[in-house]
Amino acid sequence: MEILGGPLFAVAGAGESHGPAVTTIVFGCPPGLYIRRQEIQAYLDRRRPGSNKHGTPRREADKVILLSGLYQEDHERLLAGGEIATWVDGVESRTEGYEEGFSTGEPIAAVVLSTSKRSGDYAQFAGPTGEVRPGHTDLVKYHKSRGFVDVRGGGRSSYRSTISDVIGGSIARRFLADHFGTAILSSISQVGPLQAPTSLAEHFGRWLAEHPGQAIPQDEIQRVLARLEAAEIYTLDADFAHKAGQLIKQTRIEGDSLGAAVEVVAVNVPPLVGEPLYQSLKVRLMGVLGGLNAVQACEIGAGVAVVARRGSENNDPIRSTGYQRNSHGGLIGGITTGMPLVCKVSFKPTSTIVKPQQSVRKNLEEIEFQLQKGRHDPCVGVRAGVTLESRLAIELMNAVLMHQAQRVDVSQFRLFPQGVPDPSAP
Amino acid sequence: MEILGGPLFAVAGAGESHGPAVTTIVFGCPPGLYIRRQEIQAYLDRRRPGSNKHGTPRREADKVILLSGLYQEDHERLLAGGEIATWVDGVESRTEGYEEGFSTGEPIAAVVLSTSKRSGDYAQFAGPTGEVRPGHTDLVKYHKSRGFVDVRGGGRSSYRSTISDVIGGSIARRFLADHFGTAILSSISQVGPLQAPTSLAEHFGRWLAEHPGQAIPQDEIQRVLARLEAAEIYTLDADFAHKAGQLIKQTRIEGDSLGAAVEVVAVNVPPLVGEPLYQSLKVRLMGVLGGLNAVQACEIGAGVAVVARRGSENNDPIRSTGYQRNSHGGLIGGITTGMPLVCKVSFKPTSTIVKPQQSVRKNLEEIEFQLQKGRHDPCVGVRAGVTLESRLAIELMNAVLMHQAQRVDVSQFRLFPQGVPDPSAP
Amino acid sequence: MEILGGPLFAVAGAGESHGPAVTTIVFGCPPGLYIRRQEIQAYLDRRRPGSNKHGTPRREADKVILLSGLYQEDHERLLAGGEIATWVDGVESRTEGYEEGFSTGEPIAAVVLSTSKRSGDYAQFAGPTGEVRPGHTDLVKYHKSRGFVDVRGGGRSSYRSTISDVIGGSIARRFLADHFGTAILSSISQVGPLQAPTSLAEHFGRWLAEHPGQAIPQDEIQRVLARLEAAEIYTLDADFAHKAGQLIKQTRIEGDSLGAAVEVVAVNVPPLVGEPLYQSLKVRLMGVLGGLNAVQACEIGAGVAVVARRGSENNDPIRSTGYQRNSHGGLIGGITTGMPLVCKVSFKPTSTIVKPQQSVRKNLEEIEFQLQKGRHDPCVGVRAGVTLESRLAIELMNAVLMHQAQRVDVSQFRLFPQGVPDPSAP
Amino acid sequence: MEILGGPLFAVAGAGESHGPAVTTIVFGCPPGLYIRRQEIQAYLDRRRPGSNKHGTPRREADKVILLSGLYQEDHERLLAGGEIATWVDGVESRTEGYEEGFSTGEPIAAVVLSTSKRSGDYAQFAGPTGEVRPGHTDLVKYHKSRGFVDVRGGGRSSYRSTISDVIGGSIARRFLADHFGTAILSSISQVGPLQAPTSLAEHFGRWLAEHPGQAIPQDEIQRVLARLEAAEIYTLDADFAHKAGQLIKQTRIEGDSLGAAVEVVAVNVPPLVGEPLYQSLKVRLMGVLGGLNAVQACEIGAGVAVVARRGSENNDPIRSTGYQRNSHGGLIGGITTGMPLVCKVSFKPTSTIVKPQQSVRKNLEEIEFQLQKGRHDPCVGVRAGVTLESRLAIELMNAVLMHQAQRVDVSQFRLFPQGVPDPSAP
Repeated sequence: MEILGGPLFAVAGAGESHGPAVTTIVFGCPPGLYIRRQEIQAYLDRRRPGSNKHGTPRREADKVILLSGLYQEDHERLLAGGEIATWVDGVESRTEGYEEGFSTGEPIAAVVLSTSKRSGDYAQFAGPTGEVRPGHTDLVKYHKSRGFVDVRGGGRSSYRSTISDVIGGSIARRFLADHFGTAILSSISQVGPLQAPTSLAEHFGRWLAEHPGQAIPQDEIQRVLARLEAAEIYTLDADFAHKAGQLIKQTRIEGDSLGAAVEVVAVNVPPLVGEPLYQSLKVRLMGVLGGLNAVQACEIGAGVAVVARRGSENNDPIRSTGYQRNSHGGLIGGITTGMPLVCKVSFKPTSTIVKPQQSVRKNLEEIEFQLQKGRHDPCVGVRAGVTLESRLAIELMNAVLMHQAQRVDVSQFRLFPQGVPDPSAP
Repeated sequence: MEILGGPLFAVAGAGESHGPAVTTIVFGCPPGLYIRRQEIQAYLDRRRPGSNKHGTPRREADKVILLSGLYQEDHERLLAGGEIATWVDGVESRTEGYEEGFSTGEPIAAVVLSTSKRSGDYAQFAGPTGEVRPGHTDLVKYHKSRGFVDVRGGGRSSYRSTISDVIGGSIARRFLADHFGTAILSSISQVGPLQAPTSLAEHFGRWLAEHPGQAIPQDEIQRVLARLEAAEIYTLDADFAHKAGQLIKQTRIEGDSLGAAVEVVAVNVPPLVGEPLYQSLKVRLMGVLGGLNAVQACEIGAGVAVVARRGSENNDPIRSTGYQRNSHGGLIGGITTGMPLVCKVSFKPTSTIVKPQQSVRKNLEEIEFQLQKGRHDPCVGVRAGVTLESRLAIELMNAVLMHQAQRVDVSQFRLFPQGVPDPSAP
Repeated sequence: MEILGGPLFAVAGAGESHGPAVTTIVFGCPPGLYIRRQEIQAYLDRRRPGSNKHGTPRREADKVILLSGLYQEDHERLLAGGEIATWVDGVESRTEGYEEGFSTGEPIAAVVLSTSKRSGDYAQFAGPTGEVRPGHTDLVKYHKSRGFVDVRGGGRSSYRSTISDVIGGSIARRFLADHFGTAILSSISQVGPLQAPTSLAEHFGRWLAEHPGQAIPQDEIQRVLARLEAAEIYTLDADFAHKAGQLIKQTRIEGDSLGAAVEVVAVNVPPLVGEPLYQSLKVRLMGVLGGLNAVQACEIGAGVAVVARRGSENNDPIRSTGYQRNSHGGLIGGITTGMPLVCKVSFKPTSTIVKPQQSVRKNLEEIEFQLQKGRHDPCVGVRAGVTLESRLAIELMNAVLMHQAQRVDVSQFRLFPQGVPDPSAP
Repeated sequence: MEILGGPLFAVAGAGESHGPAVTTIVFGCPPGLYIRRQEIQAYLDRRRPGSNKHGTPRREADKVILLSGLYQEDHERLLAGGEIATWVDGVESRTEGYEEGFSTGEPIAAVVLSTSKRSGDYAQFAGPTGEVRPGHTDLVKYHKSRGFVDVRGGGRSSYRSTISDVIGGSIARRFLADHFGTAILSSISQVGPLQAPTSLAEHFGRWLAEHPGQAIPQDEIQRVLARLEAAEIYTLDADFAHKAGQLIKQTRIEGDSLGAAVEVVAVNVPPLVGEPLYQSLKVRLMGVLGGLNAVQACEIGAGVAVVARRGSENNDPIRSTGYQRNSHGGLIGGITTGMPLVCKVSFKPTSTIVKPQQSVRKNLEEIEFQLQKGRHDPCVGVRAGVTLESRLAIELMNAVLMHQAQRVDVSQFRLFPQGVPDPSAP
């Protein structure tokens, strides 16, 4: 099943790159969360390819319409979320989507239509003589599915499928923010050989060292967000952003592509969540972050650097106000400590390049592969941040609900007032 | 998670009675199944309230549009499945849905819009002083969700949610029919005190006794389907159908409602499927059939009648051509024997009645409840057949895939021809 | 996976009828429940075949040893739960099991050894010429597993596997009793044609009608338990118990077997639990109760009787003190109302009989089947009560945890006192 | 639930460091695999702390006894797997475990007893004034469980819990080897600052370059295994192994600890397995390898090095004989290509050190923490290889079964020969 997260908070996704729509169902949002479509839309806008100067020059509206799971008695506000219509078998159906309302605990469905039309652009890739793009899933998916594969734009293996991640993540973020003040941010930390001079982990680490035992205030978080959004690519340091932007532009001209690393950090994290061992939050985060398309590595806390350390350096001292450092990246034994969750993800250079490459047809006949047409995003990592943030949010929210499930409070099980059983009665 | 079936073939659903849409994602259909939207639509048409003379007099189009998971190179046929458009934030997006194509193994999403509009019809039920309809989920769902509940038409507890079951079931039926010739039928066996004189189990049982060891031919199945569809309500016996129809009509006039029993039967069932014990097909079918809205009992094979039997009567003799009787209802130890799967389900009388009843407001203040307006289906059981068939199909298909997973054939794991490892090599 | 319940509270089981042991792992018991091995043992003693006059005359000790998941600082009490030793490869390992302690939230493992030894008793059933016992899983499991099947005593399809159910259920019952005063009881309601004159549902229904809005006190529950245990078979009415006992005895002499029906009831049930629709508590209970070995029907509340009713009879009136009747059997929309959970299960007559029957060998060669030796329990239903109670407890407990997960209380997420984020801070 | 892998092949584990036993249930092994206890034992022996010169100087026998899921008609061989006995409530039960037999498809249970006895060693850690070891789970688990935690040796967070991983992995490896010739190996690639001069990926990469399109023969695999086992620590290069061994010894003397990196590689991997996106094999491997205790990073293929590469360098050329390089590490789009699966995992230095550290009591009172007694393994990474191999095997096997499930072959669904339905019949 195409399910992210779970078993308590989970996101189901469907939809291919050039299919009619990406469909999403979000399960397990507790009743009573006030959800605004505009907030989800804002995250989707960040995800959209055309949303930064260095992404694919493809324009997609990616407007989301919400189709279930919300309610409020003010139907005007509830039903202000756009319109949707179908024309099928000569019958028109038309209705309004949800703009804002309280979650009811029921699944929240969302649809984002694609505006791409049918086309002959994909003749190069179709059928047993279709060409295989190196680095892409073309060959394995063709043979896995015995040829029954949607060849348009990579089918479901496209980054377009992450629309579902972002929708689910938006809801999780709202929940975590409302309950714990949690904020989840990302910053590009490397583009090709260029490394960012600073990181979110360092930035927030300094703040926490100066304010022991305090939660990070929302205005501090807003200041950091403003810096990230102001930069030429989504990163803390404007100068690095500019240089990286130049490198991306140059690499695109050369018909080549670049790798990137992205740091994703959550602050004001509820402690004690993440079941131990086989389903720990560490297992889950490594899986969803490290398993994202094009990712080849995932690090938590000090990451690969720990190998060269001694225990006496790496163990984080503990005082009554909290952990004094964060080599552990917010997780010990796969359980949150309340320190920032710190993850870093390494993306390979975009597989789609203009330069010619050795490849085969799907029937394994050898060819010199040359991309004929199509869009080309020279550094896929630079717009992955919002997806990583979303996946982290989904897993963190699921872990919060899992922890709460272990703290049974009998007062939450009441209907008729007199009928509450008292187990201590004779 | 709102998931039917699984882990291999599964259906996710979302959507409330009077919300914008019912959204469905079907997971795990293997690649290569040819799926036609018209076939799914036909099952949805059977499910629709206005589809028989004795259901709710509500008119819904319930047109399905398919949004992912299909493909074929003939884009004209693929994309002939109607149009869908959204208007959100001033942006129009418009695209075509899928009409027919091969499954790709990716999730298949489907949307059915509701044509109902916002209304003040639900003031009677809104808020803490909202009235509770006896027999409905109003009270428990209000308190479970701390008041954050969609009160329109029962919200997600409505039969409208079974649209997802039917969509998923349609795909499972196509798969089972193509591979095994399996057909799944239902027949109303009782309406209030009126009992049908015959049953599908008896009908097919006679056929099998006369044709030992044979599969039931498709024309025989078609004859039975024709009888079911010709009757006034969906049942084998026209005379019983007529009497039951009269009783339903009379009961509606009286402002009251009726229970019903429905038999659901699969023939040409692949044997050997259903993992034993905790996830056996018996566990699964009892759950999904017996757990459907308004159901109070589920029987398999001879059902409650077995209690009064001796083992020497109840054990089904076995010959080289197969089982000689079907008291076991097609399952022994929760595994299919290849005999027809025979289930029977007992529906309570529709909870919505016009007669006044003792009830409370959601704040537990006592009232004399009187339905003010709204539609009223006096015998919910009579249109449940297609949902039961669908749920059976979903579980049977999942069980087929589970069985296949245990029969690993190394020839199914090939990409480069030379590279097939040979474990017996030195 | 052989998992009962879940995803939050779940029981994994392993072990065959005549294998070395039944092994059980119980997942998801929250930390802090005080668990006594003696209590689990008492339920296992009720389950044991030799535990009533009318079961299999096989003597099994079925002593349970607990191997993980408990703790208390008093190691003397913790480690007083017997000893376990292995001798493997010439190495003896020996340790003590847990007698009582607090759950830690970690999985609780339990082993019950079998004392049966290897034997030639099963030659009649071994290999492709092995004989098939009508009504048993012999034939389907042989072909499903391509012959790799443990033929001794039905392998894992034996009732012996329900040891895991009972262990898991014992822990769930303790949790439910401690938190809500919940008690789960069963009573045999029919043996062959003999019907019990009363039922638990009626008994507790009367009590509740006389004490509106009150929880059933523990002494009342104890009185009912005493009646059940005093009777010749586990049922409320001593006279019925005696007649049924005579019938069972007579049927055994005749070499035949009898069906039975068993009612299982929970009182002082926490309301509001059971997620709606696809995973409702009704779906779950129908599945686990109706899916138990030898069961052919499962009813909830008024069960099959609802078919012949009108809505005006069947809808349960509601007053400020609670529901006034319990046709709904404690579940509306698959969610608990706080009224007793009332289920009834129909067991087929034991498949193993002495009378000769038509059957085949596993290679489908026809035979006249005659049981050569082996034990024979003429009415399997009469000792199934404790298993049904256990399965109900497991699902109810899982549903309780699922409900709690939706009620997030931020005060349950604290580690360092100052570090609690305040989402309303600027 | 403590489940590794799944939903088709899965391993459940239970048991704490100093509890009576580690209990394991392996689900979903298809029937017909010949399993030898001695083979599982051999992997457990590699896992055992005392198994190399540089691990914890604790002696554990870790003898495994198998209690279910195997069978063969030769009961002498089946039941030669040692003896197990319990003494509970004055009753002795004693039986033999399984030594070798065919899997039946039923769950395989295994128990490994601990020989450690009760002791007062843990007074330093008990209760609210118990001391917290920096880097360990002591603090979070104490507060997560509200104090109900087994403080002995880290409870379930100990490496001892990986016994279950190794048992499950042993069965998966046997299955993969029998069907595909798959072998899974690991090699320590770094200890503290010392880096190994070679790697398994390079070694097998060279072999494949010289033998395009061929499977790696078993004798070549055996040669590599012999080198690994001969070295002072489990790594390919003897010289590096010696220097690393000296460093570990010296670091232990200094009361400190070291990080390590371990490479884990599978060769002769069945291609086409791993469902795409949310449950891809990449998601799964990142999760189970990166989520193991003490791991801070997981890399697949070229790992973090890809960030600094261009696409033209990183894309692996494809010829008719296969991929020409393996930057992708055997996975494209989360699906196996048949090239070696290459993963690398970074372990932090062992948290337990002798040097004094700043810490707190569980009640957050500040202390200078000094380890009083207890065993100390200065480089936990060096014995983690067999666990990593096991986890990889479990996920790969599950992915194989998932792929097979999508390739339905109707000839695998037969019981009575005549009764096979023919879907093409009229």
